[in-house]
Amino acid sequence: MKTNNKQPRISLVGAGPGDPDLITVKGLKAIQSADVILYDALVTEEILVHAPADAIKVYVGKRANNHKYPQEEINLMIVQMAYNHGHVVRLKGGDPFIFGRGHEELDYARSFDIPVIVIPGISSCIAVPELQHVPLTRRGVNESFWVITGTTSSGKISDDIALAAQSSATVVILMGMRKLEEITSTFQSYGKGDTAAMVIRNGSRPDEKHFVGTVDNITNKVNAACQGEPGIIVIGDVVELHPDFGSKLIAKDLRLAVRSRSVG
Amino acid sequence: MKTNNKQPRISLVGAGPGDPDLITVKGLKAIQSADVILYDALVTEEILVHAPADAIKVYVGKRANNHKYPQEEINLMIVQMAYNHGHVVRLKGGDPFIFGRGHEELDYARSFDIPVIVIPGISSCIAVPELQHVPLTRRGVNESFWVITGTTSSGKISDDIALAAQSSATVVILMGMRKLEEITSTFQSYGKGDTAAMVIRNGSRPDEKHFVGTVDNITNKVNAACQGEPGIIVIGDVVELHPDFGSKLIAKDLRLAVRSRSVG
Repeated sequence: MKTNNKQPRISLVGAGPGDPDLITVKGLKAIQSADVILYDALVTEEILVHAPADAIKVYVGKRANNHKYPQEEINLMIVQMAYNHGHVVRLKGGDPFIFGRGHEELDYARSFDIPVIVIPGISSCIAVPELQHVPLTRRGVNESFWVITGTTSSGKISDDIALAAQSSATVVILMGMRKLEEITSTFQSYGKGDTAAMVIRNGSRPDEKHFVGTVDNITNKVNAACQGEPGIIVIGDVVELHPDFGSKLIAKDLRLAVRSRSVG
Repeated sequence: MKTNNKQPRISLVGAGPGDPDLITVKGLKAIQSADVILYDALVTEEILVHAPADAIKVYVGKRANNHKYPQEEINLMIVQMAYNHGHVVRLKGGDPFIFGRGHEELDYARSFDIPVIVIPGISSCIAVPELQHVPLTRRGVNESFWVITGTTSSGKISDDIALAAQSSATVVILMGMRKLEEITSTFQSYGKGDTAAMVIRNGSRPDEKHFVGTVDNITNKVNAACQGEPGIIVIGDVVELHPDFGSKLIAKDLRLAVRSRSVG
């Protein structure tokens, strides 16, 4: 039984992309000393076995009726639990500061002068393609990567996607699967139809699935298998480094060389 | 004493940004079963205590005469060590696939049919601002972040920096400190002189230092303290969420409101 004479404190912890061993040692230590754990839908429950047996574990992802907890309610719960029980670990999928509203939770807790530490997590935007052996950067191929949310507060696709389509960056779109067709159309309108594209579902988990292709055909490939499910979209030449492409990157270089010869 | 009858295998492991507890549990397990560890300048040596006592540890960062090991030599060493000793852990600062040439090492090892697993690491591009309580994304402030190398193979600053200056993304520049003035000039030429900017040195380490300001004044602030040292550059409105700014983000909203009133 917990006493309520502990000092309130909060650890905002990234749980990583799914594989329970992809949490950091620091994150694991926080869980091991937790009085309360508030965790999201994206957090693998296997991570929770590291919590003390008497820690309170509360799932704050989607409710049974599929409505999410309002952010205000989660903020309040974090603070109340810290006052009542001591060390609250707020465990979030991926990294707490990448499209995770983690900073809003930090802000709220700080307004009560409760000490908060932030423990970064492995972000799926980098790690999920990486586990498929696709690097977001490769010397000689690209010099940057751009990570964009597909779901903005307005419900429209971000204007940044049109800018990204004009850049040489590897573009990673999170929470964009419902807008996949709109996103690929944007890239097509900037002449990027034959750029390599990839979709990864359940990255780093045993049921991981991936689809590789080009901007032109990735939507059909994905929709033929399953529609509307969440996933990560990666668009850029580095996708050609995926083992499924074989030596396509070299093939494209040759193709470009052939093209410039026909032009010249 | 190691025998050479072990199966060669390679784990490409990200050690994280500096704090030895920011390695993943999976990375730690790889180190604990290593026969050989090849590690970089950016890796905290405290991580190496987890290796078996008889594991061979080789530093492949800058040599005493300050020249780096050529990449070809590192590639060869990884493969030779795997053949001779079994499990090679190639331990790299941050994440192995972010500007780390990790994929080149993977490619080389794969050409010998040696099994390679990749274990993501906490990338400094996200985690170092985060540990300063600056999120790369915040709902209502921005919808994307763009990570760019300041040092390209040509030696010039990346063309992507000029594009980034026109976007609403939070821009993170790694390995760009020697080009700080050129980078800020690029942002100024797109009217971004008063955008918040930040430089962080030795992020996540006990000797961490940070500088906050605007695109217009960050170079002077940094140079007044120390010139030419490595660091991470962050440019974007989210930097105003840094505790040093107090409630500047709100102040700016008010300022913008005042401006639109004077226009109207």
